[in-house]
Amino acid sequence: MTNAIEAARLIGLDWGTTHARSYLLAPGTGAPQLLDQRAGDGILSVSPDDPDRDAAFNAILRTLVADWQQASPGLPMIACGMVGAAQGWREASYRSLPTPLAGDGGMTTVDTDFGALPIIAGVKKSRPNADVIRGEETQLAGLVPELAAGRTTLVVMPGTHTKWAQVRDGVLLDFDTAMSGELFALLADRSMVGRAGAPPEPGQDWRTGFDWGLDRAGHTDALAFAAFVIRSSVLDAQLPASQVRDAISGLLIGSEVADRAAKLDLASMPIVLVGGAELTERYQRALARHGVSATLAPDDVTIRGLWRSAVGAGLVGE
Amino acid sequence: MTNAIEAARLIGLDWGTTHARSYLLAPGTGAPQLLDQRAGDGILSVSPDDPDRDAAFNAILRTLVADWQQASPGLPMIACGMVGAAQGWREASYRSLPTPLAGDGGMTTVDTDFGALPIIAGVKKSRPNADVIRGEETQLAGLVPELAAGRTTLVVMPGTHTKWAQVRDGVLLDFDTAMSGELFALLADRSMVGRAGAPPEPGQDWRTGFDWGLDRAGHTDALAFAAFVIRSSVLDAQLPASQVRDAISGLLIGSEVADRAAKLDLASMPIVLVGGAELTERYQRALARHGVSATLAPDDVTIRGLWRSAVGAGLVGE
Repeated sequence: MTNAIEAARLIGLDWGTTHARSYLLAPGTGAPQLLDQRAGDGILSVSPDDPDRDAAFNAILRTLVADWQQASPGLPMIACGMVGAAQGWREASYRSLPTPLAGDGGMTTVDTDFGALPIIAGVKKSRPNADVIRGEETQLAGLVPELAAGRTTLVVMPGTHTKWAQVRDGVLLDFDTAMSGELFALLADRSMVGRAGAPPEPGQDWRTGFDWGLDRAGHTDALAFAAFVIRSSVLDAQLPASQVRDAISGLLIGSEVADRAAKLDLASMPIVLVGGAELTERYQRALARHGVSATLAPDDVTIRGLWRSAVGAGLVGE
Repeated sequence: MTNAIEAARLIGLDWGTTHARSYLLAPGTGAPQLLDQRAGDGILSVSPDDPDRDAAFNAILRTLVADWQQASPGLPMIACGMVGAAQGWREASYRSLPTPLAGDGGMTTVDTDFGALPIIAGVKKSRPNADVIRGEETQLAGLVPELAAGRTTLVVMPGTHTKWAQVRDGVLLDFDTAMSGELFALLADRSMVGRAGAPPEPGQDWRTGFDWGLDRAGHTDALAFAAFVIRSSVLDAQLPASQVRDAISGLLIGSEVADRAAKLDLASMPIVLVGGAELTERYQRALARHGVSATLAPDDVTIRGLWRSAVGAGLVGE
């Protein structure tokens, strides 16, 4: 810890809805060096009606940075995520498209008990469809050095609300959000389709049900018809109940990918997936149906993005 | 009641999941004459573990028919609906496509405390997609005399699970189910999209939000993207929160109709809507976007269908 704190140049905070993480960082070759880390509460743990929200957020910040700031007073900090949402500590303004991913643009700074805390701005678009990202812009900033120069890369970030972002030479050009993860939870856990399902058999290969769903996914089928077929197919003994969840997953991810394939020339751009193995493998499989392959991003793109954003904002040297 | 029971020739039962209805019927011109009616419990009120399920179902039947059967012993009965499902009184076999809607095929008869109760068979298909109807086949049977002879009519039956049926000369040719009603409830009541909404303003016209949803509905947009745009548009002040529910409704019904328009030649067939005014008006509006109009079925198609099915089965004369 003593050696670490001497080398440290930045505290990066990834402060989300239900969890917060802080990272003690130093320069490294290619990626910043992670010296230490802490975990704390997300923004939901502070009530919107709290009479002293500043004190409540400072109390969380204390759990995340106090001993580091005590050992090295004035260490610069930077944060990304929902801490900058309307329900967060201070609403950080949004940037518009196109926007450099790691510039000094649009940060909102909060005065905290431990010094200034710049919050990285999210990105908002209004046309052709309204959409917003907050947090993912930092992951994208961390990914930029990995991307081919001079080409538009499609970055897919699966999750509750999956983001499809187009990045070129460090600039975010466009993005769209699909609520496939949330729809999966609604259909699998709360619908008549999910109720037709049963737990997976021991050792069952997820690909079997997933491929069944992919076979029925396409941008010309309304989900309301296609999802109901899963239930009917169980009743008709065409699909084992144990494969229902994977079939729902295949149908949703397959529909999402088919939609993008209809709107973008997937074969013309490198595709990079950001996320955990379980989900990215599913997206790779769905993309393969359209004849394209995707590479995986490094695990630590958030840490890299916090560092690069701090460099871009002049908080720390390269 | 005395005069009614003398004229009565049939008891028709529409016995569903949560409710049951019984009708005392006599011949009429065009449609059967409704002499009296009763309401009772649906099949869910009988536990699958009930040690004497026959007794439990007979007890419900008693509330529905006992005084009629006492006044006119041996009056024929017929039932449709979930009473013939696996969870019902007795599982009624399914018919396959194509099938006459009011023939004598496939009924399953239960011996009850009040005599024989034939249950109308549902219809099942396996190709190209598995699907099942149970109950709607009786509504279709009641609708047949209203339909143009020699032409295929598309009958749309909106609800939790909306049915799209193709009927020609009294024969059910094909059908498909869309879970638009269930998806509406999931998205409006349980999703982040619904949470972006607010109750309608007093006097607000449902068409405003509904049309907004229709504008964004189409078979080339995956629902996972399109639904999320509703939420983002509220945050971007492009859509009032009070119109979110209608926008979800427009998006789902619009997608469902666009799907059918891509697969069927809607302009080539008469379209008939079966259901309550609130939903059928929405489907008419969505169909109008595709340049087609739909007429409304009579309110009493279930009663007509029970009567016509009884005639077809030889239980009662025309």
